Amino acid sequence: MKVTVFVTPKKTVLDPQGAAVGHAMEHLNVKPSSDVRVGKTIEFELEGSDTPELRAQLEKICDGLLSNPVIEDYRYELA
Amino acid sequence: MKVTVFVTPKKTVLDPQGAAVGHAMEHLNVKPSSDVRVGKTIEFELEGSDTPELRAQLEKICDGLLSNPVIEDYRYELA
Repeated sequence: MKVTVFVTPKKTVLDPQGAAVGHAMEHLNVKPSSDVRVGKTIEFELEGSDTPELRAQLEKICDGLLSNPVIEDYRYELA
Repeated sequence: MKVTVFVTPKKTVLDPQGAAVGHAMEHLNVKPSSDVRVGKTIEFELEGSDTPELRAQLEKICDGLLSNPVIEDYRYELA
């Protein structure tokens, strides 16, 4: 089963990396009409099917390893 | 129009960050059955509608700013 985890900065948190990308875009004559948000994607495969146990394990690594719950949100897709 | 750009390391390129995440997962008793790939998402809004000119501008910033074409692939979604 393919797992894709999307980690993004919380809306309430300043995203300096996003601000820098936004400024750089303007130098290329592309003016974003909103803040730019830069996040991470983590892709991997897991043995087994979509069970509550597997989701619990996945949430454990999302919370404890793949994201910083203080400043980031995450969601995941199973395929 | 909301733009989401997904930048991922090329399949042929070693992903040290992904390898490190994979090892860390194993310490949390989660064993991925494939390589772990860590990529970036860049989200922003652009004025205007889905036109060839807008897509050309988008590809210019994807190639020139948001990704490194030598080691990374990108794709984008317009919503």
